[in-house]
Amino acid sequence: MRIKILIRLKSQILEPQGKVIEQSLKSLGFEEFSNIRQGKLIEIDLPDSLNEKERSEKIDVACKRLLVNEIIEEYEVLG
Amino acid sequence: MRIKILIRLKSQILEPQGKVIEQSLKSLGFEEFSNIRQGKLIEIDLPDSLNEKERSEKIDVACKRLLVNEIIEEYEVLG
Repeated sequence: MRIKILIRLKSQILEPQGKVIEQSLKSLGFEEFSNIRQGKLIEIDLPDSLNEKERSEKIDVACKRLLVNEIIEEYEVLG
Repeated sequence: MRIKILIRLKSQILEPQGKVIEQSLKSLGFEEFSNIRQGKLIEIDLPDSLNEKERSEKIDVACKRLLVNEIIEEYEVLG
């Protein structure tokens, strides 16, 4: 099973890349796009033999130990 | 409405960052994690006044004109 981990800076942390994208889009005429933030996407294959609980636990541990800096980032897992 | 755009390198393109993450996870004991690829997440607020068709069209144009290099990347929109 392929899962997606979305990693974003916490909302109180400035994310300059998103601001640059927002300015560029506005200069191209995309006035309606606002509050743009860029983050990371990590996609991972996990064996189907794991049940949902095992999968979710493994992902959480991997995020906390390596993938996510929880001081400044938060993550969301899409199945 | 906040939408997510997931941007990833096409599968035939080498993505070294994912390989590094995979090796690091393996060295930490996460043997089951495979085929890891890293991509970009862009999150955008769009006005609720747009209907779904308008929203989807605007996002497609913005992706093609600025956000996505369609020679090497593909994108997916999550509502």
